[in-house]
Amino acid sequence: MYNMAIELKSDGTKHLYEQIYGHIREEIKGGKLLSGERLPSTRALAEYLQVSRSTVDLAYEQLVSEGYIEAAPHKGFFVCRLEELPEGNIQSKLDDVEKESRLKKADESLACKARGKAAYLDFSPNGLDMSVFPFSVWKRITKNILTEGNEELFALGEPQGDYDLRQTIGRYLHSARGVNCMPEQIVVGAGNDYLLMILEKLLGQDAGIAMENPTYKRAFHIFKSFGYRVDIIGMDKNGMKAEELYEKQVQAAYVMPSHQYPSGITMPIGRRMELLKWAGEEEERYLIEDDYDSEFRYKGKPIPSLQGADNGENVIYIGTFSKAIAPAIRVSYMVLPPRLLKRYQKECYFYSSTVSRIDQRILNEFIRDGYFERYLNKTRKIYREKHDILLQELKPFLKKFRLSGEDAGLHLLLGLRDKSFTEKELVERAQENGVRVYAFSEARVAQSADDGNPTVILGYGGLRKEEIPDGIAKLKQAWL
Amino acid sequence: MYNMAIELKSDGTKHLYEQIYGHIREEIKGGKLLSGERLPSTRALAEYLQVSRSTVDLAYEQLVSEGYIEAAPHKGFFVCRLEELPEGNIQSKLDDVEKESRLKKADESLACKARGKAAYLDFSPNGLDMSVFPFSVWKRITKNILTEGNEELFALGEPQGDYDLRQTIGRYLHSARGVNCMPEQIVVGAGNDYLLMILEKLLGQDAGIAMENPTYKRAFHIFKSFGYRVDIIGMDKNGMKAEELYEKQVQAAYVMPSHQYPSGITMPIGRRMELLKWAGEEEERYLIEDDYDSEFRYKGKPIPSLQGADNGENVIYIGTFSKAIAPAIRVSYMVLPPRLLKRYQKECYFYSSTVSRIDQRILNEFIRDGYFERYLNKTRKIYREKHDILLQELKPFLKKFRLSGEDAGLHLLLGLRDKSFTEKELVERAQENGVRVYAFSEARVAQSADDGNPTVILGYGGLRKEEIPDGIAKLKQAWL
Repeated sequence: MYNMAIELKSDGTKHLYEQIYGHIREEIKGGKLLSGERLPSTRALAEYLQVSRSTVDLAYEQLVSEGYIEAAPHKGFFVCRLEELPEGNIQSKLDDVEKESRLKKADESLACKARGKAAYLDFSPNGLDMSVFPFSVWKRITKNILTEGNEELFALGEPQGDYDLRQTIGRYLHSARGVNCMPEQIVVGAGNDYLLMILEKLLGQDAGIAMENPTYKRAFHIFKSFGYRVDIIGMDKNGMKAEELYEKQVQAAYVMPSHQYPSGITMPIGRRMELLKWAGEEEERYLIEDDYDSEFRYKGKPIPSLQGADNGENVIYIGTFSKAIAPAIRVSYMVLPPRLLKRYQKECYFYSSTVSRIDQRILNEFIRDGYFERYLNKTRKIYREKHDILLQELKPFLKKFRLSGEDAGLHLLLGLRDKSFTEKELVERAQENGVRVYAFSEARVAQSADDGNPTVILGYGGLRKEEIPDGIAKLKQAWL
Repeated sequence: MYNMAIELKSDGTKHLYEQIYGHIREEIKGGKLLSGERLPSTRALAEYLQVSRSTVDLAYEQLVSEGYIEAAPHKGFFVCRLEELPEGNIQSKLDDVEKESRLKKADESLACKARGKAAYLDFSPNGLDMSVFPFSVWKRITKNILTEGNEELFALGEPQGDYDLRQTIGRYLHSARGVNCMPEQIVVGAGNDYLLMILEKLLGQDAGIAMENPTYKRAFHIFKSFGYRVDIIGMDKNGMKAEELYEKQVQAAYVMPSHQYPSGITMPIGRRMELLKWAGEEEERYLIEDDYDSEFRYKGKPIPSLQGADNGENVIYIGTFSKAIAPAIRVSYMVLPPRLLKRYQKECYFYSSTVSRIDQRILNEFIRDGYFERYLNKTRKIYREKHDILLQELKPFLKKFRLSGEDAGLHLLLGLRDKSFTEKELVERAQENGVRVYAFSEARVAQSADDGNPTVILGYGGLRKEEIPDGIAKLKQAWL
């Protein structure tokens, strides 16, 4: 009999059967027990190891389940034939991946230490103010929903999102954004990126997309990752030039008519009609309207959506609660025109919803019961105050810089009137003074003959009110 | 002067400036004010309407913002040139979409009424038992997390998921499933479907995928929706036939080695090694291991994952908390081999995470603090009881039917030993007796010469213990 001298430990850390199973498995994997070899009978091994027979039975059963040995009726247990086990060390293969991120972190912390400061005053266009978020309301709604009576919320919901939430979103979009749609047309998803992935399935694999330059770069990367051809369309002060669309073979144009990122342009109704006319001329032409920060406008009433001006056939409307509530609320929504809705129901019905029903329900009650509107009013007030402070503080800059894009959203542009600095210099000089601003050209997705004057993006959502004058004073030192 | 007789209402429902703005906008859209036409000066209109001049200013500003009119310095305001507004009724276009779903619901409710019963006893393979879910624990964790001090949770997290959660998942996968990985390799996403969409970006647009037949049909549909070629590979009692892979030009094989759906086959180590050998022979060959219900096994220890037997290069491991916790917990995870991880970091870094940080944190604490394991132990016990009851009740069937796939998961198979009924007849006769069972061939993704004997799937996760004997008694009437 093959040496079955297994050292069994009875310290309780491992079942006896597991130890026997583990030992034999390693012997097989190590090539010490060869394929075809007969194992001792369970009775013999149990006697030899002084354990109960059922313990050995369990070990053999597990080895059979995993396919290391097989039972031949009335003959006993035999080692199976195995392909050789590959070798390798995952740790070493990951070394360069890990180092990369470690280095990145080290760089940042060094840079901070060099300045002897905790952090930059960051005029990030993605900054948000969470100071008035009604945590207690959110907590209360969550608590009420998570009661024993709501077990059905732990089941999987509808792929498009729960009907109640879609109804609430539809109502909100109608009153706040002039969007005309039925709840049936809304697809709820975990973030815009995911919704664009669904859209990819609807537009097909060879779609061409028209984009402005500069534009929202994440969307550009996503379209490129779909393998889509992206055609750059010229812009003027009204936004995307509709007449250039006719020169391109594109299926859709991606626009942000309420507040183009990063230029801040609000597209006038005339240009909107031109775009709608282009889209309406062929069956499969669409405008993808990304209404990313439409909630915040400082001059007059909100500008109604492009979707609301359409006949309902050609605009794919996408919006998100990431800006209006919080980035962590991974809920975006897409309004599909009927033709695409039918395709979605036929070809995408099997994609499960990416938003948990609990989160959908919380959000639904948050909006339905008026908390969202109240919160929006509060944040609008705060952002307007920051906006006004920033504009006030920027007055001394206006001789040297031109201000634009300041009527809406959470960022504005400062463009040099001359070329006394490059964009890179503007950003670097700011950084040396402890302030982060963002180069306009970072949002460019293609080279163009004339990049215009050096321009930087200043976001003011994330800074505290009292930080703004401090930051601007530092920019004065850097630039004036 | 053009007729500006605007009927202003002062009932407080609408600002005066909004009424003026709305009136002029409609006049322009209706073609009554023509492009190029000059509007009255703000002073003149204010006097005429007996409102303050700033009210008219506001109205004009809004019209300028939206692009209906433009200001010419020192000349006044002029109507812009607009493309014609398209017409259409969204409601009529949606009619057929809506009717469709209404009809579906009507059908179901009619069917129920016809039987005069509330619902079927449903042996759905997707049914789960939420009766012992620790709602109070989940609620408490949620409550603690949603405190004022955790504002950072409302910010956007890392695209791959929060590191803490990935660490916790990695530890769990190592101890429970024998998966070897670093947290860096884990991508957390809102459901398997989403993770497969990410995988599509990594494998490219022209990948060929090998699948078994029958298989998990949702995955099949998803691969097809990617435009992937799906090649069907034969199965024997050990699962996918590795030798057939060599005849196909595929980049990846999709398998469920722990418990193939729907056959219930546990792939023995020998077959696993053959698959790993195939995958290891070329740089870009992968095995996609869907470990969908690996938590539930009724015989011996859990079978370690295929990933754990690999050298770390060729297995893409996918798992989910949808079965183990609840379908509404939209959290799945994918373990990428280093080569794909590098590609992910290079080409997919811009896809934002689809799981909210709050949900990630709740889940992390739920697992980390041992609640998950305790809950799993409870559900394992419940499912084992249901499993045992079902097996006991099925004894009278074993003369006519063959039982299989019963060692793990939440479903088993009953295959007729003869062909006295078709699968369709089995399902229909069950339904006539108030019981839902599922045709094995529903999971087929291709025709094959021999479909084998008529077989049905019985899932037992969702039925209450006391419902099982009742359901089986009805099946006896239907089939025996």
